[in-house]
Amino acid sequence: MSPDFQAVLDDIATTLQPECGMAGQVASYIPALARVPAAQFGIALRTCKGEEALAGDATTPFSIQSISKLFTLTLAMRRMGEDLWDRIGREPSGNPFNSLVQLENEQGKPRNPFINAGAIAVADRLVSLGNARADVLAFLSDLAGELVDFDEEVAASEAETGFRNVALANFMKSFGKIDNAVAEVLDLYFHQCAVRMNCVQLARAAGFLSRDGAHPVHRRKQVTTERQARRINALMLTCGTYDAAGDVAFSIGLPCKSGVGGGIVAVVPDHLTLCVWSPALDATGNSLLGLKALELFVAKTGLSVF
Amino acid sequence: MSPDFQAVLDDIATTLQPECGMAGQVASYIPALARVPAAQFGIALRTCKGEEALAGDATTPFSIQSISKLFTLTLAMRRMGEDLWDRIGREPSGNPFNSLVQLENEQGKPRNPFINAGAIAVADRLVSLGNARADVLAFLSDLAGELVDFDEEVAASEAETGFRNVALANFMKSFGKIDNAVAEVLDLYFHQCAVRMNCVQLARAAGFLSRDGAHPVHRRKQVTTERQARRINALMLTCGTYDAAGDVAFSIGLPCKSGVGGGIVAVVPDHLTLCVWSPALDATGNSLLGLKALELFVAKTGLSVF
Amino acid sequence: MSPDFQAVLDDIATTLQPECGMAGQVASYIPALARVPAAQFGIALRTCKGEEALAGDATTPFSIQSISKLFTLTLAMRRMGEDLWDRIGREPSGNPFNSLVQLENEQGKPRNPFINAGAIAVADRLVSLGNARADVLAFLSDLAGELVDFDEEVAASEAETGFRNVALANFMKSFGKIDNAVAEVLDLYFHQCAVRMNCVQLARAAGFLSRDGAHPVHRRKQVTTERQARRINALMLTCGTYDAAGDVAFSIGLPCKSGVGGGIVAVVPDHLTLCVWSPALDATGNSLLGLKALELFVAKTGLSVF
Amino acid sequence: MSPDFQAVLDDIATTLQPECGMAGQVASYIPALARVPAAQFGIALRTCKGEEALAGDATTPFSIQSISKLFTLTLAMRRMGEDLWDRIGREPSGNPFNSLVQLENEQGKPRNPFINAGAIAVADRLVSLGNARADVLAFLSDLAGELVDFDEEVAASEAETGFRNVALANFMKSFGKIDNAVAEVLDLYFHQCAVRMNCVQLARAAGFLSRDGAHPVHRRKQVTTERQARRINALMLTCGTYDAAGDVAFSIGLPCKSGVGGGIVAVVPDHLTLCVWSPALDATGNSLLGLKALELFVAKTGLSVF
Repeated sequence: MSPDFQAVLDDIATTLQPECGMAGQVASYIPALARVPAAQFGIALRTCKGEEALAGDATTPFSIQSISKLFTLTLAMRRMGEDLWDRIGREPSGNPFNSLVQLENEQGKPRNPFINAGAIAVADRLVSLGNARADVLAFLSDLAGELVDFDEEVAASEAETGFRNVALANFMKSFGKIDNAVAEVLDLYFHQCAVRMNCVQLARAAGFLSRDGAHPVHRRKQVTTERQARRINALMLTCGTYDAAGDVAFSIGLPCKSGVGGGIVAVVPDHLTLCVWSPALDATGNSLLGLKALELFVAKTGLSVF
Repeated sequence: MSPDFQAVLDDIATTLQPECGMAGQVASYIPALARVPAAQFGIALRTCKGEEALAGDATTPFSIQSISKLFTLTLAMRRMGEDLWDRIGREPSGNPFNSLVQLENEQGKPRNPFINAGAIAVADRLVSLGNARADVLAFLSDLAGELVDFDEEVAASEAETGFRNVALANFMKSFGKIDNAVAEVLDLYFHQCAVRMNCVQLARAAGFLSRDGAHPVHRRKQVTTERQARRINALMLTCGTYDAAGDVAFSIGLPCKSGVGGGIVAVVPDHLTLCVWSPALDATGNSLLGLKALELFVAKTGLSVF
Repeated sequence: MSPDFQAVLDDIATTLQPECGMAGQVASYIPALARVPAAQFGIALRTCKGEEALAGDATTPFSIQSISKLFTLTLAMRRMGEDLWDRIGREPSGNPFNSLVQLENEQGKPRNPFINAGAIAVADRLVSLGNARADVLAFLSDLAGELVDFDEEVAASEAETGFRNVALANFMKSFGKIDNAVAEVLDLYFHQCAVRMNCVQLARAAGFLSRDGAHPVHRRKQVTTERQARRINALMLTCGTYDAAGDVAFSIGLPCKSGVGGGIVAVVPDHLTLCVWSPALDATGNSLLGLKALELFVAKTGLSVF
Repeated sequence: MSPDFQAVLDDIATTLQPECGMAGQVASYIPALARVPAAQFGIALRTCKGEEALAGDATTPFSIQSISKLFTLTLAMRRMGEDLWDRIGREPSGNPFNSLVQLENEQGKPRNPFINAGAIAVADRLVSLGNARADVLAFLSDLAGELVDFDEEVAASEAETGFRNVALANFMKSFGKIDNAVAEVLDLYFHQCAVRMNCVQLARAAGFLSRDGAHPVHRRKQVTTERQARRINALMLTCGTYDAAGDVAFSIGLPCKSGVGGGIVAVVPDHLTLCVWSPALDATGNSLLGLKALELFVAKTGLSVF
C-alpha cells in the first residue's frame, strides 16, 4: 500500500516552514534571479499511476536553469541514440560545474551532460538537428501538459553575463568538439536555462523517468526506451547535483537534477517523480530546503533506490 | 515470483565461456597476481532469503584486493559512526584511483573511501581502534560463514612494490590526516588487499547490503543499520569501480565494488548480493568479463536500482 | 674589442644553410602562416653603438606573432607603471602558453605577460587607454625607424579560428579581470600578432632593451627607464620562449622573445639586440633554426648574461 | 673601478638594522629551526679577484637547507655530465616547491633540480655514485676552505617530520625514477639540508659560479667547466627561489639560491658571489631581509645580469 503522499508533502512543508528563507543564498549573478524572494517553498509529486500531490508554492513558476539539462539530454538521446556519447562522457567530474580544468585534460570532451560544458555540447547537437529552441519548448509543453515558455529577461541576462559559458563553448570549439557557431549554441543554452515552470509541471514532465520511459500522460507513448530512462536516472544519481552528487546519493539516495533557480527534480523509479523548489541555495549551489525536503521524504516513506 | 537464478547464472557462464581469457589483461604489478591464469570465470549470488546459486569457478579463491575496502569501510562505520567522515569525503573523484592531485588540492582529505587514499585513511582509523588485522579477518570470516585468511605472499609483494601507496600515506600524513605510523597503517592496508576469498564467500559476506544491514546468516544480528547499508550502496554506485563508476551506473545500474584481482561484488537492494570473478581486466582496471556478466544479469532479470 | 659581428652572422647563416627547411614544422593553424616556405633563414643585429649586421633573409618581412607581446608590454609599462602588475603576474607558468588551468587556480590572473592570457590582459589595459591599434603601429614604426603595418589577412584568420583565445578572454572576464568588451580586446590582440616586420626592423625596434631603455636611434629619448628595461629582459629570460624558457636560459642564456611566425628577438644587455627568423618550429613552438642560431652566436662570441 | 664593497655591505646592514626581526616568520616545521632568533642579519661577498667583505652576523653559522641543492647539483653535473638530465628537467615549475601535481602529470620527472623532487632525484644519482654523504661534506669543505659539518639534530628532525619528502621520493620511485632505496636517498637529502655554514663560507664556496667555474681559491682548478657554471647560474635565475623566481629575476636580476634557513646565495657573473642571511622568511619561503638586501645591493652597485 502506498503512503498517503498528500499527507507526507503537507507534513514536510509544515516542518520546513520555520526555516524558510532563514539560511542559504538566492542566486545573485543576474538581477532576475537575485530578486526572487527567498522565503518560498513548494513541493509536488506524481505517481506512476497518475496520482498527484502538492504543497506550498508548488504552482509558482520559477527559472528551471540546470534542470533543463535533463530534458535537452533526453531530447538528444531520443534523436541521436548512442552517437551522442562520442562527444560527451558519463563520469562524475570531481570539479565545479563550470570548471575548465578537466576539459583541458580531456581534450575538450566534457565529463558528463550535466556539467555546463556537457550541456553546451548537448545544445550543439540539438542545434545541428535544427529548430532547437522551438523543439525544446514543444517537448517540455507536451510532457508538462501545459504550455511553457522562456523568460526572455533571464535569457538576455544570462547572455550578457555568461562569460564563463562563452569561455567553455569556445574552449570546446578550439578542440573541434562544437560544430555550430558558438553564439547559436549559447543562444539555445541560455534560453533552455531560462524556461519558467512550476513544481507540478516539472513533476509531471519528468514522470517518464519513473515509468520506464513511458509518457507521463499517454502511457502508450514512449518518451524514451526503458533502458534510456534507467540510464538517465543513473546519470542524475552520479552527476545531477553538481559537486554534491556523491553526498546526495549518500544521504538521499535518489536520482536528482537541481538548478540554481532552487528547483530539484527527483525520481523514485517505478513509484513517482517529485519536484521541490526553494530559492535559497547552499554552498554547493543546490537548494538548501530542497535537499532537506528530499531527506525528509526519504525518511518518511522509506523510498530510496538503495 | 523471482527468476530461476541458477538458470540465469548458468546461462551467463555459458554465454561468456568463449570469451574467457581472450581479452583484457591480468594485473601484473606483482608476481602473485601476474601468474593467475586469465581463463577463469566464476559467479555466485545469495538472495535476501538465503537462496544461493553459483556457476563456473565460483569456489576458486582469489585476491579480493580493493573489494576489501568495502568491508573495512563497514567496520569503520560500525565503530566510529559519523566521525569517520571528518577525514574522508563521499564524492566521486574524477581522477585515477591512485592519483595525488586531488589530495593536494583538498589538503590531504581523500574524496571517498574507495580510492586508495581513502582506504588508507580508513585503515588508519582501524589501526587507532586497535587489533586491526585480526579484526578484519574475524569480521570477514563471520560474514562469510567460513574462515578466511591473508595471502602473505601477496601482502609481502604489495609492501615491496607499493611505492605509490607509501607516497599517498606519507602525503596525507604531511597534512596531519593520518594519526598512526605509516608503516603500521600500510601493513593493514596491504594485508586487507591480500585476503583470499571466493565468489560464494563474497556474495554471502556482502549480503547485509541487500538486507538493510541484517547479518547474512543471523537475521537478528545487524551488521549495520539500514541507513548505513543504504549509504554504503550509494558509495558503491558512485565510487565503487574506479574511474568507470559513472559508466557502470549508466550501463549496469547496480552498486558495485571491484578489485584488481578480477572480482566484483554487486548489490540489488532488497533482492540479492552477487559476486563475479574473472582475472582479466579492462583499461579501467575492472574485470572485463565481470562487467559483461553484470550487464547480462541486469538484462536477463530486469533487476537494477533505476 | 668587439667581435666582427658581420662575420659571425655570415658564419652562422652558412653553417645552418644545409639544415634550412629540413626539420621542424611551419605553424599551420591559419592558411597565411601555413603557406610560408619553410626554407628561409634570416638574422640581424644592432649594437648599442648603432652598428648593424645582417645575413640571409634578414629583410624579408614575417608575422611577428608573440614577439608583439614584448612591445605591447613595453607600451603598457610606459603608460601605467606599476599598476599594470595588479592584473598580471611575473612568474613562469610551467604550463602551455594557452592553458586555462592556471588561470582557474589563480582566479583569472595570468602568470605573466607573455602567455596568451597575459598578453590579452595587457591588450585590455591598452584598449582602456584608447586608440590602441594606431598606438601600437606608431610605437613599432618609431622604434623600427620605418613604417610597419598589420597583415589584415592574418588578423582576420586569427579572429576566425582563435577560439582558444576567445575562451581565455571570456574566462578572465568571468573573473572580472578584463574591463573592456572581449571583442574589442581581441581585435587588438589579433592585430598586434599580425604585424609584419623583418629581422633588421625587429633588432632595431628592441634595441632599447640593450641600451638601458634608451631609444634605438635617438639616444636622448628614453623608451623606458633603465630599471624597466632590465625588468623586461628578466621577463624575457624567465618567460619569453613559452614552456622552453628554462631550457633556453640554460643552453643560450640570453633574454629572448619568440613568436610562432618563426622569429626570435634576443638581447645582450649593454651590447646588442639580435633578431633571428626561420619559419619551421620545434615541438615547443620556437623556431628550430632560430634557437640553433642563438646557441651558435653565444658559443662564437662568448656573450651571455651568465 | 669596482665599488667599495665593504662600504656597500656596511651601508646595507645599517639600513636594514631597524627592520631586523620585525617582520616575516622563522621556519617552524622543526624545533631546531624554530628556535633560531629572528633578529639576525649577515652579509658577505667575495669578488672574482679574491677580495672579501662582510657585515653583520656574517660568521654566524646557519642551516643551509635548500642552498645545498646548488652544491649537490654541481657535484652531480661534475660526475655525470649530460646524463643527469635524463631524470630531471630544467624548467621553472609554476607550482610550490613541494608540489606533487606536476610530478604526476610528467610521470615522475621533476621539473628542475631545485624543487624538492628534483633535489631528491639528484641525491639518488649521488647515492648511486657511492660515498655520498662524505663526498658532499668534502666538496663543501674544499670550496669553503674550512671544514663544514652536518647538524645531526636538524637532520634527525627533518627525517622525523619530512612526510612530504618521503611522499615525493616514493612517488618518483613508483614511476621508476629513483634507483636506490628511498630511505638511503632521503638520508642524504636530509643531511645535505642540515649542513651548517656561514655567509663568508657560502660566498666563498659558490665563488666558482662568478669565475666561469674556476675554484674559488685555486684558480688553476676548475670546479666545473665555464659552460656548466653558466648553466647553473641560469637555473638559479629561473628556478632558484621557489615560486618567486620570476619576481626575483624581475626585481633583483641576479641568479640566486635560497633556503628556508634564511640564507640566499647570489651570483654576479664575472664579478662576485654574495651570501646574505636573515632567518625570518616571507610568504614565498625566501628570507625577507635577504631579498631586500639584494635589492639594495643591486640598486647601489648597478650590478645585475640584465
